[in-house]
Amino acid sequence: MSPLTLTVDAPSHSYPIFIDTHLQAALARELAQYCSRKAAIVTNTTIAPLYLEQVQAACKTAGIDSFTIILPDGEAHKNWETLNLIFDGLLQNHAERSTTLIALGGGVIGDMVGFAAATYQRGAPFIQIPTTLLSQVDSSVGGKTAINHPLGKNMIGAFYQPQAVFIGLDSLKTLPEREFAAGMAEVIKYALLGDVEFLSYLENHMDAIQAQDAQALRHIIGHCCQMKADIVAEDEKEHGRRALLNLGHTFGHAIETEMGYGVWLHGEAVAAGMVLACRLSEQLGNISTADSQRAIDLIARAQLPVDAPTFAFATWLEHMQHDKKVVNGEMRFVALQQLGAAYMVKGITAADLRTVVPHA
Amino acid sequence: MSPLTLTVDAPSHSYPIFIDTHLQAALARELAQYCSRKAAIVTNTTIAPLYLEQVQAACKTAGIDSFTIILPDGEAHKNWETLNLIFDGLLQNHAERSTTLIALGGGVIGDMVGFAAATYQRGAPFIQIPTTLLSQVDSSVGGKTAINHPLGKNMIGAFYQPQAVFIGLDSLKTLPEREFAAGMAEVIKYALLGDVEFLSYLENHMDAIQAQDAQALRHIIGHCCQMKADIVAEDEKEHGRRALLNLGHTFGHAIETEMGYGVWLHGEAVAAGMVLACRLSEQLGNISTADSQRAIDLIARAQLPVDAPTFAFATWLEHMQHDKKVVNGEMRFVALQQLGAAYMVKGITAADLRTVVPHA
Ligand SMILES: NC(=O)c1ccc[n+]([C@@H]2O[C@H](COP(=O)([O-])OP(=O)(O)OC[C@H]3O[C@@H](n4cnc5c(N)ncnc54)[C@H](O)[C@@H]3O)[C@@H](O)[C@H]2O)c1
Ligand SMILES: NC(=O)c1ccc[n+]([C@@H]2O[C@H](COP(=O)([O-])OP(=O)(O)OC[C@H]3O[C@@H](n4cnc5c(N)ncnc54)[C@H](O)[C@@H]3O)[C@@H](O)[C@H]2O)c1
Ligand SMILES: [Zn+2]
Ligand SMILES: [Zn+2]
Repeated sequence: MSPLTLTVDAPSHSYPIFIDTHLQAALARELAQYCSRKAAIVTNTTIAPLYLEQVQAACKTAGIDSFTIILPDGEAHKNWETLNLIFDGLLQNHAERSTTLIALGGGVIGDMVGFAAATYQRGAPFIQIPTTLLSQVDSSVGGKTAINHPLGKNMIGAFYQPQAVFIGLDSLKTLPEREFAAGMAEVIKYALLGDVEFLSYLENHMDAIQAQDAQALRHIIGHCCQMKADIVAEDEKEHGRRALLNLGHTFGHAIETEMGYGVWLHGEAVAAGMVLACRLSEQLGNISTADSQRAIDLIARAQLPVDAPTFAFATWLEHMQHDKKVVNGEMRFVALQQLGAAYMVKGITAADLRTVVPHA
Repeated sequence: MSPLTLTVDAPSHSYPIFIDTHLQAALARELAQYCSRKAAIVTNTTIAPLYLEQVQAACKTAGIDSFTIILPDGEAHKNWETLNLIFDGLLQNHAERSTTLIALGGGVIGDMVGFAAATYQRGAPFIQIPTTLLSQVDSSVGGKTAINHPLGKNMIGAFYQPQAVFIGLDSLKTLPEREFAAGMAEVIKYALLGDVEFLSYLENHMDAIQAQDAQALRHIIGHCCQMKADIVAEDEKEHGRRALLNLGHTFGHAIETEMGYGVWLHGEAVAAGMVLACRLSEQLGNISTADSQRAIDLIARAQLPVDAPTFAFATWLEHMQHDKKVVNGEMRFVALQQLGAAYMVKGITAADLRTVVPHA
């Protein structure tokens, strides 16, 4: 199957996304051109035994002098302590400002390594090699980098674009089913927020996708990356349209934070959060219960949760108020105008939320 | 005496520097226009009793809802733990992405608060109120922000410009003499690297400067800020000319790190470092021993050290190799072509350094 190359025309700089059946093939073709002569490969204890050798070999072939930093695995480690392990490794290995950081892993690795690159000596180049579906369709593209703070997810970070993104469809073969499903939440998000035809595509090809049919995977990953690239080109720093990519995320972040990082996967929380966003959209009089049901059915077919956990209402509110979308104390939410068309709704009150979120 | 307003035309955005005899006056005139409706004033235990009330009052008058975060004082605290205290305070006070961070203090506060602003929710606005001579002439302008890592100074940071800089000459009255002298090191640096007439001005007005004569202070602070603004406008991210501002700093950082942060003041280390840069320039055949002596005399008159401490040669080398100016393993130094004209010299070898640095 032929490889696909997309371009992200971000205002800060343009960079390619290479999508290939085999990661190795994409790296062999293009790595030398996008990586400096010295590189730090940063990955975690789960991914290292699976893919590290491939990347090390690709570096060697390309004449790149590489060293490796292996981090503990998990969202619970997406924090300053782990970030510091990256800085320690970079400094111990005399990494320079021109050394390329290669993020090999899912969104946790990508976000952390991206943030390390953004801040190491005030900015080193980096490359994304996303190995989860979620990171391939979402987090590796667009330059949002971050770590968590005990009081809020992704609260500390930077906008910082990579030099290139390398996506191997074969990397997904080893991905646990639950993680694959979590990635599908973001795929469905793209359809709901901006492309009702893509929603139909997903409804019609869910079986092929679940079976990791290469053509179907290339289509959905390419389509999501293209949608994200278009949005980022227009609004790199999320002053406007880019915020629509947070459909389901305000609710989702509340679920993630309240349950404790890592108990619900990000994608699972987003899935349940999208259902709440549909309910809010219903209440605003935009979409019908049948529309919501269509979204719920697709989410359920993707093996994702559709019911958010029950919290005290004050708990929900507390989380909403910590959200980055709060402006001058006013809560904003991404809601649906219709299926395939999201918008930002301002001035949502506690009373509006009360009927939407499950509370005791 | 009439206030002075300069503009920094940084590629990312333009912003003003207000220089006034009285900080209070500048704030009263301009704060409302450059600060958002909610602000976090970040300062330290030394500066809070001296200037916090002024700034809180200015916020109140301007209709800005402010809260305060007070940090421990000292270069030794310019690290992640202290940065985290800022994030804690921001999150506990429900600071939003639009909340303005106000850095009230010297370069340590300015660098840390700037970095906190660069990374809080991926970028919040911030204002600099520098209260040391060093921060007024150097660190508060140009958007370099950073914290230290145990393995290197300012190793983690970002380029991030403030919304405005407010300089009150009256803030310097409470500054310890040793700190005033340290600021003079950066003032002398500007003269040595780019303006031999300014060097003469400093030689002719050193007594008035030391006596904190307002006209002399306004002249030197305005002149240094203007030089820095011009350089930053041309080269915000230090790909070229901006690196010349590091005259004496490669040696200086080695001294600071090896002696332990805070034992030598930054300016003191830079002073001794500039003398070494002069010696290197002599050895390169650019300047005469008399030129070096002229620099040394001025540095000494400013109550600054001219002799670097003695380290093992390997220690010097080790620090040089951690420096941000290392590119592909090659050491680069800022040297003088002549007094008032610095340039970047590449390919300096260990043998070149051996006769320059004091070693056992
Ligand atoms: N930056 C953005 O724009 C953005 C967008 C969405 C999500 N995110 C962030 O992404 C993170 C979630 O990313 P994620 O879902 O990729 O989680 P993850 O990075 O934790 O990966 C999930 C699990 O799968 C393992 N894994 C990764 N690739 C594998 C493979 N090929 N085979 C077997 N195991 C593999 C990981 O080690 C981990 O245990 C969250 O922290 C979220 O905040 C960021
Ligand atoms: N960002 C840049 O471009 C840049 C440039 C040069 C230096 N720096 C950084 O700046 C830092 C040094 O800054 P500094 O010299 O201002 O040190 P500092 O911030 O530590 O201040 C020196 C001391 O004076 C106290 N102080 C500050 N203002 C006072 C006042 N008005 N009255 C009485 N006491 C006062 C401080 O609390 C501190 O104890 C270093 O960390 C250095 O790396 C950054
Ligand atoms: Zn997401
Ligand atoms: Zn300095």
